[in-house]
Amino acid sequence: MVIKILGSAAGGGFPQWNCNCRNCSRFRQGRVRSSARTQTQIAFSPDNQTWFLVGASPDLRSQILCSRALSPRAGDTSSPIAGIFLPSAEVDAVMGLLHLREFQRFVVYATAAVQDMLKAENRIFQVLSRGNPPVEWRTLSSKGRVGCYFSDDPGASFVCDTIPLSNSFPDYVGFKFRGVEGTNEASVGFLFGIAGKSFLVAPSLSNVDGFRHTAALSADLMLIDGTFWSDDELRRTGRSNKTAREMGHLPLSGPGGLLARFPRDVPGRRILIHINNTNPILDEDSEEHRVVRDAGFEIAYDGLEIRL
Amino acid sequence: MVIKILGSAAGGGFPQWNCNCRNCSRFRQGRVRSSARTQTQIAFSPDNQTWFLVGASPDLRSQILCSRALSPRAGDTSSPIAGIFLPSAEVDAVMGLLHLREFQRFVVYATAAVQDMLKAENRIFQVLSRGNPPVEWRTLSSKGRVGCYFSDDPGASFVCDTIPLSNSFPDYVGFKFRGVEGTNEASVGFLFGIAGKSFLVAPSLSNVDGFRHTAALSADLMLIDGTFWSDDELRRTGRSNKTAREMGHLPLSGPGGLLARFPRDVPGRRILIHINNTNPILDEDSEEHRVVRDAGFEIAYDGLEIRL
Repeated sequence: MVIKILGSAAGGGFPQWNCNCRNCSRFRQGRVRSSARTQTQIAFSPDNQTWFLVGASPDLRSQILCSRALSPRAGDTSSPIAGIFLPSAEVDAVMGLLHLREFQRFVVYATAAVQDMLKAENRIFQVLSRGNPPVEWRTLSSKGRVGCYFSDDPGASFVCDTIPLSNSFPDYVGFKFRGVEGTNEASVGFLFGIAGKSFLVAPSLSNVDGFRHTAALSADLMLIDGTFWSDDELRRTGRSNKTAREMGHLPLSGPGGLLARFPRDVPGRRILIHINNTNPILDEDSEEHRVVRDAGFEIAYDGLEIRL
Repeated sequence: MVIKILGSAAGGGFPQWNCNCRNCSRFRQGRVRSSARTQTQIAFSPDNQTWFLVGASPDLRSQILCSRALSPRAGDTSSPIAGIFLPSAEVDAVMGLLHLREFQRFVVYATAAVQDMLKAENRIFQVLSRGNPPVEWRTLSSKGRVGCYFSDDPGASFVCDTIPLSNSFPDYVGFKFRGVEGTNEASVGFLFGIAGKSFLVAPSLSNVDGFRHTAALSADLMLIDGTFWSDDELRRTGRSNKTAREMGHLPLSGPGGLLARFPRDVPGRRILIHINNTNPILDEDSEEHRVVRDAGFEIAYDGLEIRL
């Protein structure tokens, strides 16, 4: 199995179009050792032929073009992308669906809550129905498993467990679709199991208890929420009045942060994704970058490829 | 005044993510003399300080990053982009608004019809209201003129005439918002007048009569619809069942096409924009490319900059 990190930044990317924070301004001036990052986008292929996406980033068009494996092969009339798993209805997880409006069939896997937020009040996504056959939506139960059999080769099939993570809703969602308290279907993680290997994707993690008692912790690879270093990061940089936790993200640092709370005995590779432009770990010479690496976490970058 | 063509392709860009047409497949194989193109996006600045956009392309984030002039200057806390003129509610003209969701005030200029299509049935655009102050929407009359005074320097102000072009609605728009027949407010062109110079932007032109009797034909620069070479181009390449005309675009070739119908005595520079991935003029060695150039039209490419 191949997993590609096509994008590794949080919403807005790095640098961000209207931001002059310490990271963004120093990056534009060439004064920081770091890499530009597009918005978080994962792609994986069980057989190196058919591809699946996790999330649909606002940068998806350019991310697909950067990867020859995701382009139509000679003689084919369509893309090798067969399905998309949506972890939430946040703009940076769904906007890319509009990049895929050019008359191709694929399957979108999402919880009922995510589908409601997206479709009921946003007709623009109906551009996905123009194809013949149209894009197909399949509903994920927030605690269920779905099997994906997409080719004649049974070895290429895989399973996906949906892990309910939080009831944090995007700002744009109307009251009517803010879902049932406690269902935690608004933001989910995915645990993919393929040929005896597994990997977790959880770009929004409001606490580590969410998957503490699941098989997630034994995954061979964990792609997890590295959005913010500190809880008040956006306030201090003047970008927002919200804390990391209010936005559904456990910060990396602090006594209750991800680094402190994360179980010590996790066997798999741990890679931080969805890194905000304000996060000091983006600076490869920073103390925060060193602390994260010393704690056993890798920091995702665009183009990182993993084979399991 | 500076005008930048940040993107020059039609919806989907060139190459297109799921397309293997003659242009896209040869481009991927390095077998055609042509340039990759992002989706049509114009930026202009009357004073080289404050910038305005025409359209909000799906590729807007990367297009802004490619142009240093559009990034925050040292010491500034926000982008120099002050306003956006929307020619239609088509996905490739509005999706980029979602790239600009990061808490900045700017002004969106659009007809009432375009605003209705966009806002009434698409809550996702409410992310633009999160800032303090929020993004401001100003309504353009389809035959009116608006004056833009954005700095203390009166020489930096400009006027914008809205030119009604067609009542062609995007596929996703519900029946209720398909507007009043004959108002032609669904798709408009813009004629900008600044310090004695003028330029026209019309990425969707269903006929040339639309601006035949206006000041548009005397513009110093015309950025006009070069989407399709022939009326049945999408049918022949298997991409759609619609003709160019059914999609609101006058094809370039044929007895009733743009090249045949365009007035001979136009004084200004004429540049084709919004070029579809299937259009043979993208191949710089093609007969169609030569015919267009011989007829006095330039073919836009990403990065083209014009000073008036």
